Amino acid sequence: MKPRCIWLDCDTGTDDAAAILCAAALPELKLAGLSSVAGNVEGRKTYLNTLRICRLMGRTYPVYAGAAQPLAVPYTPAYGFHGENGLGGVELPLPEHCDAPELPAWEAIYRCAVAQGGELELITTGPMTNAAMALLLHPDLPQYLKRILVMGGSATGGNRTPAAEFNVYADPHAAQTVFTSGVPVVMCGLDVTEQATVTPAQLSALAACGGTVAQTLCRLLATRPDHQRGAVMLHDVVPVLYAARPGLFEGRKAWVRVETKGAITRGKTVTDLYSDKKYPEKNALVLLGVDRSGFARLFFRLILSLDGICTDEACLDQIERGALT
Amino acid sequence: MKPRCIWLDCDTGTDDAAAILCAAALPELKLAGLSSVAGNVEGRKTYLNTLRICRLMGRTYPVYAGAAQPLAVPYTPAYGFHGENGLGGVELPLPEHCDAPELPAWEAIYRCAVAQGGELELITTGPMTNAAMALLLHPDLPQYLKRILVMGGSATGGNRTPAAEFNVYADPHAAQTVFTSGVPVVMCGLDVTEQATVTPAQLSALAACGGTVAQTLCRLLATRPDHQRGAVMLHDVVPVLYAARPGLFEGRKAWVRVETKGAITRGKTVTDLYSDKKYPEKNALVLLGVDRSGFARLFFRLILSLDGICTDEACLDQIERGALT
Amino acid sequence: MKPRCIWLDCDTGTDDAAAILCAAALPELKLAGLSSVAGNVEGRKTYLNTLRICRLMGRTYPVYAGAAQPLAVPYTPAYGFHGENGLGGVELPLPEHCDAPELPAWEAIYRCAVAQGGELELITTGPMTNAAMALLLHPDLPQYLKRILVMGGSATGGNRTPAAEFNVYADPHAAQTVFTSGVPVVMCGLDVTEQATVTPAQLSALAACGGTVAQTLCRLLATRPDHQRGAVMLHDVVPVLYAARPGLFEGRKAWVRVETKGAITRGKTVTDLYSDKKYPEKNALVLLGVDRSGFARLFFRLILSLDGICTDEACLDQIERGALT
Amino acid sequence: MKPRCIWLDCDTGTDDAAAILCAAALPELKLAGLSSVAGNVEGRKTYLNTLRICRLMGRTYPVYAGAAQPLAVPYTPAYGFHGENGLGGVELPLPEHCDAPELPAWEAIYRCAVAQGGELELITTGPMTNAAMALLLHPDLPQYLKRILVMGGSATGGNRTPAAEFNVYADPHAAQTVFTSGVPVVMCGLDVTEQATVTPAQLSALAACGGTVAQTLCRLLATRPDHQRGAVMLHDVVPVLYAARPGLFEGRKAWVRVETKGAITRGKTVTDLYSDKKYPEKNALVLLGVDRSGFARLFFRLILSLDGICTDEACLDQIERGALT
Repeated sequence: MKPRCIWLDCDTGTDDAAAILCAAALPELKLAGLSSVAGNVEGRKTYLNTLRICRLMGRTYPVYAGAAQPLAVPYTPAYGFHGENGLGGVELPLPEHCDAPELPAWEAIYRCAVAQGGELELITTGPMTNAAMALLLHPDLPQYLKRILVMGGSATGGNRTPAAEFNVYADPHAAQTVFTSGVPVVMCGLDVTEQATVTPAQLSALAACGGTVAQTLCRLLATRPDHQRGAVMLHDVVPVLYAARPGLFEGRKAWVRVETKGAITRGKTVTDLYSDKKYPEKNALVLLGVDRSGFARLFFRLILSLDGICTDEACLDQIERGALT
Repeated sequence: MKPRCIWLDCDTGTDDAAAILCAAALPELKLAGLSSVAGNVEGRKTYLNTLRICRLMGRTYPVYAGAAQPLAVPYTPAYGFHGENGLGGVELPLPEHCDAPELPAWEAIYRCAVAQGGELELITTGPMTNAAMALLLHPDLPQYLKRILVMGGSATGGNRTPAAEFNVYADPHAAQTVFTSGVPVVMCGLDVTEQATVTPAQLSALAACGGTVAQTLCRLLATRPDHQRGAVMLHDVVPVLYAARPGLFEGRKAWVRVETKGAITRGKTVTDLYSDKKYPEKNALVLLGVDRSGFARLFFRLILSLDGICTDEACLDQIERGALT
Repeated sequence: MKPRCIWLDCDTGTDDAAAILCAAALPELKLAGLSSVAGNVEGRKTYLNTLRICRLMGRTYPVYAGAAQPLAVPYTPAYGFHGENGLGGVELPLPEHCDAPELPAWEAIYRCAVAQGGELELITTGPMTNAAMALLLHPDLPQYLKRILVMGGSATGGNRTPAAEFNVYADPHAAQTVFTSGVPVVMCGLDVTEQATVTPAQLSALAACGGTVAQTLCRLLATRPDHQRGAVMLHDVVPVLYAARPGLFEGRKAWVRVETKGAITRGKTVTDLYSDKKYPEKNALVLLGVDRSGFARLFFRLILSLDGICTDEACLDQIERGALT
Repeated sequence: MKPRCIWLDCDTGTDDAAAILCAAALPELKLAGLSSVAGNVEGRKTYLNTLRICRLMGRTYPVYAGAAQPLAVPYTPAYGFHGENGLGGVELPLPEHCDAPELPAWEAIYRCAVAQGGELELITTGPMTNAAMALLLHPDLPQYLKRILVMGGSATGGNRTPAAEFNVYADPHAAQTVFTSGVPVVMCGLDVTEQATVTPAQLSALAACGGTVAQTLCRLLATRPDHQRGAVMLHDVVPVLYAARPGLFEGRKAWVRVETKGAITRGKTVTDLYSDKKYPEKNALVLLGVDRSGFARLFFRLILSLDGICTDEACLDQIERGALT
C-alpha cells in the first residue's frame, strides 16, 4: 500500500521531537514537509530545533519557517516545560545549512496540498497559526486538504488554564479558523494525550537498547517536569500515530468551537459530546481513549527502527516492563 | 445529636420535589424554610409547586417567593424537562392558603441566617438568583451562612449548552456572586449528579411499596425524558443527601469561577482541578463521585419514611433490584 | 395644572444634593418619594446624605434605602469627586429619626408606581440598581411607569473610562435592564450634562443672596474638583429640570444599548444616532443640548426659592454675571 | 525638498481611488508601492481595481495583492456603498499585465520599509489586515516604519455599527495590532473624514474642467449613496493629504485601543480624549478637524494636475462654488 502523504507543523519542543521521529519512521506515512511555528519557544528556535531533529535522524526534509506570533493575541513562551531552548537545555548539533527558505510555511503547505491533489493530511503539534494563515490566505485550500490532525484542545478541562489547553490558548483565533474551515479535524486533545504516557523506567529501557536516536530522545524527554512526576505525556506523538494506526484509538464525532471572547475561558474548545444542544454539525473527531500499551510499544519500536534496531515482541515486553537488559 | 438547620431554595420541578421530600425526611436536618425562584418554570409556578409538595407530605413549612427573573440575562423557561407546569403535567392539589408572604425570599433567608447565629446551611437547587440577592443586599450575610450547597455547574461539560449546566447558565451572574461570596460552597454539579440515578424499574418497585408520597413522586419522575432513556438523574437530591451524609460522596476542593462574558461559554463553571495554574484559593468543594447504591437506597428509604413505611435491608435490596413484590 | 408625580433615586453626593433641592422646589413636580443606592459612596452613606439634604430644606419626604452593591459587578466607591462622606467632607446634621424603613427601595418604587396608576416618572441620578431591581422583581412594573429619566451614559465618550460614564459603568447590567425594559427612557448623558455648568463666580453670587440652603449647597459644590477647574457640572440636576422644563433642552430619539461584555468598553451606552444600522427601535430620548443660560438661571431661582427668596430677572442677571451684590 | 516615501494599502473602492490619485499627484510624496486587501469588496477585485486606477493615470506602480480575509473574523463585503465591483458599477479598463506578483503584500511592505531605512510611511485606507500581517510576521518592522496613517476608527460613534467604523469593524484584531505596534499612528477617523466632503455641484464643476482622470473619478464618486445625499465624504483621501499637508488638519494625541470582545462594540476604537483615566500612553494622533475649504481645493487641484491641467485660484474658486464654466 502506498504511504499516505502528511505535512507536520511543529513548535519543536521535546514531544514534538518525538512526533517528528515517529512521522519519519512510520512506513504508512510519507513526510512531505515540515514547518515551524512560535509556541513552546520562539519561532526562530522552533525552526532550528526542527532542523536539529532531522539531522539527528540523518535525514533531510524540506523545513519551512512560519509565524513568529499568534494572529490576534500576544505571544508568550512556555519555557517551564521545554526549557529556554525548547529542548530542555540539551544542545543538539545543527545541520550544515540552516537558512530558512524564502517561502513562508503557509505558502509551502498550500502548494504541497495543491500538488498532492487533495490527498495531503496536515498534522499540527503547536499553535495553529500556520494552518490558519494558509486557510485565511487561500480560501480554496479546504478542497486540497484531506484532513487536519491537531494536538490541541480538550473536551473537558485544560492545562494552560483550568479551561484551556496550551496550543489552543496560545492562538485561539487560529484554532477557531481551523475548526470552522470545513476540513475534517481530528482533535487529539488532553482527553487522549494525557493517557498517552511512557514511564521513566520505560525510557531508560528504551535507551539501553542502544542507538543514538533513542538515547538522544530519552535525554530530551528526561528534562520534562512530567518525567519527574513519573509519566511522560507524549502529547504530540498522538496525532502522528493516529494518522497511521487509528485502530489504537477511540473517539467520537462532535461539534467543536473555540471560545475567543471569554473572561476566563480563552481558548476553551467547547465540545458538544453530551449536551441538550446536540448540534447536528459534527466538525471534529474527538479522540477520547487509547490502547496505552499498544501506543507505547509502537512508539518504542518506531524510535528504535530509526537506529536500524529491529525489535521483537520479547524485546518490547522488556521495554514496556521498564526492565534494563 | 441536634439536627442541622438548612434552608432549601428551589425552582420546583420534578427532581426539586424529590429534594424537598428528602430534606423533610432526613433526621439529621431541620428544614427551617423554603423559597422558590424562576428556573425550570416561571417563579409563580415554582412557588405554588413548592406548596404542593409540602401539602403532599402533609407538612407546613414557611415558603417564600423569590426572583421572577435572573439578575442580568433574560429569563427563559425549560419546559422540555419538567413540562409547562413544572411537574410533568401532573396536577397536584394546593393547600388551602397560598398567598406568598410579603417578605421576599432573600430577606427571609437573611433573617433566618441571622437568627440561626451562623449555623444555617443554604441549599439551592435552581438558579442562584435568590442567594445572590441576599448576598448583594446584605454584605454581612457571609458571616451568618455556614455554607452554600448548590445543585449546579460542572467541572467538565454542560447539559444546557456544551459548556454550561442549566442552573448556572440560567443566571451566571448570580452563580458568580455565590462562588465569590467567601461562603464555603459545595458544588454538586453534573460530575456527580449524572451518577445519582435511579431506574424506572426501581421507581416502580418503590411505588409498589405503597404510600401516597412515594407513588406521587414516582408519577412525577416518570414524566421525565431521562426516565424514558432508562435512568432518572436525581440532580437536586444530591446536595440534600450530601448535607446529611457526606460519607456517600467524594470530592475535591478547587478554585471555581463562572464565565459571564464568553461568546459560547456563558455560565461555564471553570474549575481548576488539574491545570498548571494551580490557583491557591479553593473556594468550592467539587463533588466528583457518589456511592450509587448507597445513594439510591437512602433515597428509597427516605421517601417511604414519609408515608410511615419502615424499610429493612431486604426490602431495600428488592427495590434496588427493581423487583416488584 | 396639577404637578406631575416623580420619584427620585439618588446616590447622594454633591450634585445629587442639588438635584434633590430642585426636585423639591419645582412647582411642576410633586416629589412622591426618594430612595438611595450605593454609587458615589456606600449605600449607607447615600441614605443618610439624602436625609441630610431633606433636613436642610426643612422638609420631610419618604426616603427608602436601596441596593448596597451592583447586580453583577463588584462595588467600588468614587471618593475622588464627592469625598469619603459623599458631601465633599462637609458635615451636615441628620434629622432626628434616621432608621431606614423596612421596605426596600425597589418595593417602595413599585408600590408608588402602582398607586399612581401609571403616572409616576422615575428619575435616577446614580447607578440604576434600584430601578433594575424593581423591574426584575415586578415584570408588570413597566405598565405603571410613565418614563424613566436617567442621569447616565453618553452617546460619545465617557468619564469613568474612555468608553463609559460613571453611573452606567458602575452597574452596567442594571442600566441594560432599564434601557430594555420597554419604559420610555430619557438619557441625560454626558453629551448634555457636561454643558449644564455653573461657574464658581456664579455660585459665590448665589450664596451672597443669603439663605441657608443656597449657602450650604454652594459649600458642597465648592468642594468638587471641577469647581477648581472653573465650571461645576450639575449632571444630576439635568433630568430633574428636564422633567419640568423640557423646552430648555434638545435631544433625539435613538436606539441605545449597554455593553456588558467588552474588554475595555464595559458600561458604554452604544447609541445609534448616525450609523448605517439605523435601528428602527428607538428606546431612548438622548439629550444632546441645553440652553445653558436658561438652565443656570432656573437653577439659581429654584435654590433661592427654598429659602423663600424671590428673584427677579435683574437679580438673576447679576448672579449669572457672577457679580457680588 | 526630497519627497517623502509612502506605501498605500487600499481596498480599492471609490474613495480609495481618489486617495490613490492624490497620492500620485502630491509632489511632497513618492508612492513607493501599492497593495490591496479585502474590504469594501473581495480581495481579487480590490487588486484589479487598484490596477485600473493606476492605468487611468497612465502610471505604473508596483501593486501587490494581500489578504483575502480578516485575521480572526469572517469576511463580509460592503456592496452597499461601492457596488459589487467596488467602483459603483463603473467599468474601467485593466492594464495589459494583471498577474499579481508572487510576493504577498505584507512581505513587499516589509522589504520596502527595510530598504527605505526607516523612512517609509504606511497609509492604509481599508481593513488593516496587511499591515497587521507584516507586523505579526516581522517583529522588527516597527523600527523600519516612520508612522502608519490609517483611515479608520472614530473617537465618538461609528458608521458600520453605532459603535464602530467600517475598516476597524472589518478586522478589529488587525487594527489592534497596528494601534499597539509601537509605531506612531495617525488615526484619520470619522471625526475628521465626515468633514472632508465635496458636493455634487463641486464635482460637476471639477469634471467640467475637462481631463479624463477628473471626469472618470467624478463618475465613480457620483455612484455613492452620500452623493445622492448631497455631500461626498472623501474618507480615504484624508490620510494622504494629511501626510503631505498636516497644516490643513488639527488633532490631539490620545490613548487608543480597539475593542475585540464586546457584544455590541466590536471594532470600537476606544479613545481617551477626556476621561478621568488620562492614560499617559498616547499611541495615536487623532485627527479631529480639517480646513474644509483648503482640503477641497487641494483635492481639486491634485486631480486636475493628473490631466496636466493647471489651476489658478480663480479656477479653484469657481469649482468650490460649484459653478459650471
